[in-house]
Amino acid sequence: MKKVDVENLKKIVGSENATDNPVDLYAYSGDASVHQAMPNVVVRPKTIEQVQKIMRYANKNRIPVIPRGAGTGTSGHAVPIDGGIVMDMKQMNHILEIKPGDVLVRVEPGVVDDDLNRALLPYGFFYPPAPASSRIATIGGEIAANASGVRSVKYGATRDYILGLKVVLADGSLVNLGANTRVHSSGYQLERLIVGSEGTLGIVVEATIRIYPLPKFRCLGVANFNKLEDAGNAISEIITSGCQPSMLELMDGIGIVAVNKALDLGLKEVGAIILFEADGNVKEAVDFEINKMKEICKAHNGFGIELSYDAEERKRIFSGRKKLFAALSRYKEGIICTDLADDMGVPNSKIAEAAAKIHEIAKRNNVIMAVYGHCGSGVIHTKIMLDPKKKDQWKDADKVIEELYDYIHSVGGVTSAEHGIGLSKAPPWKKARADIIPMMRAIKKALDPNNILNPHKLMDAPDDWVKATDLRYRVVK
Amino acid sequence: MKKVDVENLKKIVGSENATDNPVDLYAYSGDASVHQAMPNVVVRPKTIEQVQKIMRYANKNRIPVIPRGAGTGTSGHAVPIDGGIVMDMKQMNHILEIKPGDVLVRVEPGVVDDDLNRALLPYGFFYPPAPASSRIATIGGEIAANASGVRSVKYGATRDYILGLKVVLADGSLVNLGANTRVHSSGYQLERLIVGSEGTLGIVVEATIRIYPLPKFRCLGVANFNKLEDAGNAISEIITSGCQPSMLELMDGIGIVAVNKALDLGLKEVGAIILFEADGNVKEAVDFEINKMKEICKAHNGFGIELSYDAEERKRIFSGRKKLFAALSRYKEGIICTDLADDMGVPNSKIAEAAAKIHEIAKRNNVIMAVYGHCGSGVIHTKIMLDPKKKDQWKDADKVIEELYDYIHSVGGVTSAEHGIGLSKAPPWKKARADIIPMMRAIKKALDPNNILNPHKLMDAPDDWVKATDLRYRVVK
Repeated sequence: MKKVDVENLKKIVGSENATDNPVDLYAYSGDASVHQAMPNVVVRPKTIEQVQKIMRYANKNRIPVIPRGAGTGTSGHAVPIDGGIVMDMKQMNHILEIKPGDVLVRVEPGVVDDDLNRALLPYGFFYPPAPASSRIATIGGEIAANASGVRSVKYGATRDYILGLKVVLADGSLVNLGANTRVHSSGYQLERLIVGSEGTLGIVVEATIRIYPLPKFRCLGVANFNKLEDAGNAISEIITSGCQPSMLELMDGIGIVAVNKALDLGLKEVGAIILFEADGNVKEAVDFEINKMKEICKAHNGFGIELSYDAEERKRIFSGRKKLFAALSRYKEGIICTDLADDMGVPNSKIAEAAAKIHEIAKRNNVIMAVYGHCGSGVIHTKIMLDPKKKDQWKDADKVIEELYDYIHSVGGVTSAEHGIGLSKAPPWKKARADIIPMMRAIKKALDPNNILNPHKLMDAPDDWVKATDLRYRVVK
Repeated sequence: MKKVDVENLKKIVGSENATDNPVDLYAYSGDASVHQAMPNVVVRPKTIEQVQKIMRYANKNRIPVIPRGAGTGTSGHAVPIDGGIVMDMKQMNHILEIKPGDVLVRVEPGVVDDDLNRALLPYGFFYPPAPASSRIATIGGEIAANASGVRSVKYGATRDYILGLKVVLADGSLVNLGANTRVHSSGYQLERLIVGSEGTLGIVVEATIRIYPLPKFRCLGVANFNKLEDAGNAISEIITSGCQPSMLELMDGIGIVAVNKALDLGLKEVGAIILFEADGNVKEAVDFEINKMKEICKAHNGFGIELSYDAEERKRIFSGRKKLFAALSRYKEGIICTDLADDMGVPNSKIAEAAAKIHEIAKRNNVIMAVYGHCGSGVIHTKIMLDPKKKDQWKDADKVIEELYDYIHSVGGVTSAEHGIGLSKAPPWKKARADIIPMMRAIKKALDPNNILNPHKLMDAPDDWVKATDLRYRVVK
């Protein structure tokens, strides 16, 4: 590990904002992934100038810098695999300017997604990406991962909303990327290169974000299916039929059982549930969309269909899906729910086939996997549920991952739809996308020649995710 | 100029597809810009393998390669400033696969935009970017420029539709960028880096494109305004009020006079016209949107408002705007219409102010400038109309460009909204965006170390656009 001069960093950010106290370091040793590694120092800058000074110091001394938002990343993005400086961006949390007249907002990277949406509400606008962790996730972290969520089927991902970025590069220089306008053709679209680059190309210190007018009406529907396959096919048909759902979610039987156990919701324990929503400013149009989706669900043997425009009712209908992630660990005594192989994307026509395949692979390899997610945009979430104390279960997980991603890539899918590659997903992704790794490395080297920005992630991550870092579970036998 | 071995290129593409005949070379010496320069050889590959072989030959021998679609670029992208090989991609014009089930299409780069939309029509889908030149512009050229058009206000630009790209890099290697899915977080978003890179980073040889369901209803409105300022303010308010126009176009009095002269349309010669459109699958929703826009126009002194759902009527209402570019040269005897300072973007709140400023700057500098464009997405098109035979008029144009862009950049606007930088727009863009040029050059050098891909464009273009190449007009005095 590199020696880091904490006293020098304290001079830059103030003594209360730099620490090498082991208790603090431990708190920053993990994120929502299975990985764990200790940094040497944690710094919490408050200004762009402080970020620049930290980067100049780190670049000169070849010290890794790992930028970090709320630490909700599922693949190890924020885990300091080589030690170094973890840069917590959460104190740069100001909404700098809300400009409804220009249909944009300027924010610091530490602003929490839900806080931004609360601030936009009185203006009649919203910021659509909506990852499940929006209650704590920061805009900077969402940019790093190209995050998206339940609204991606209609509204797309973070990349579609980033108009401009201020970025501090590895050498401490500050660049203003992008524009204040809806479209631009003024040089390389560098702001979109930074989105999804997982902190490996620069530190985002400000974002100019396109906002969207809030729709007046939202209608949420839910349909039960005895067969997961029928639900998958209904989703595929909704998308190709020209519907414009503002949400189109799948939840399989395992997920239903888990939320019933955890939350006592009394959901009917069927093969799958679809949640479908339409939004708009005219009720007739929302009715049209929601009824079209309802009819497609019925044609695929959907039953017990409920529809509601009411905010409270919608909240109730959605509550199971909302808390699914937290509930999954309750599915069975002694197992935990790991963020492994957790967010593949598949082409729309493959939803049903992929869902069935995931269950089949899991069963054959002695783990449990729930299938759910924003399937309207091809996003399939899974969790590998296993007994973390048993060493063999981690081997089972490794086999599942390999087999599963071989299948996903064979049907034209992607390793990660919205969480990113980090450490956990690097091995299957590197296998599938070997052709683009030299191009990514060339760009990385051009912008960060000393390899200090979140090193050994993505294309440079270790080939064995299990051994990449310590696991944050105690593996006994 | 580099010596190019045309016989070797004939071996790669066949003798009918490589030429150094001066007549052919002359035909490829210009595009829709003011610039002109002769290539050494023109090649017209038909396959990815041919493109790879040409690039390997060119890279080994340090010969510039300038990829070219239909040559509709307005800023000199396709003009071979250093000679070399112009690579005409128009023979790679196959629609490879239409997959409505996956809501995407795979095409070769030489496919013409309108041809793609004609092919998608029976499936009920369309490809939205719609630049004005869609009748001849190719998808590859649109990718190079990040093209957009009348629908950008609702549907965005080319960058928003490119899911994946096959690209041949400078060294002849082939990379598969992006995904087949609506969203992805699987490595750098390199497909979006390529969009808008003006042929300087690689040759696009295949594109996977997201398609969009065709709306059932479209309603077009037109409103007259005595004052250009009122029209500009109406547009700004339509956008901030939460309307979702599928088109929101401005045309000033100069444009109206020009189309009346050229086409005898008998339009009322007022200060400005706004064209506004709404689309959707439910007539009530389209009515709601169009009436909201109509009321905003009225509140800003708009009059003579017409609305129509009828396709033929919409065609008639739009005909003046459709042919405006061609008509502008008829505005006054002896003048021509140049593609200079032709597509700035401004923040939504600055439309009226920018339109007035453009007229003021033009008048003070002895040229005529029409103001029009997709102002709903902040795109202001202008043309500098001048007497090309007079040397002083080119000096006047140069002064206008400098003054105009100083203003545009001072209000947070961009040099180019949808045409690109190329040669003509490089001087003001380089002045405004000096901070990002080192980052662009680092990426360019990493991917094209021998600087053979469309060299001396964008960040590497000459500082004086007038002297960058010959002008394609005969300047007498």
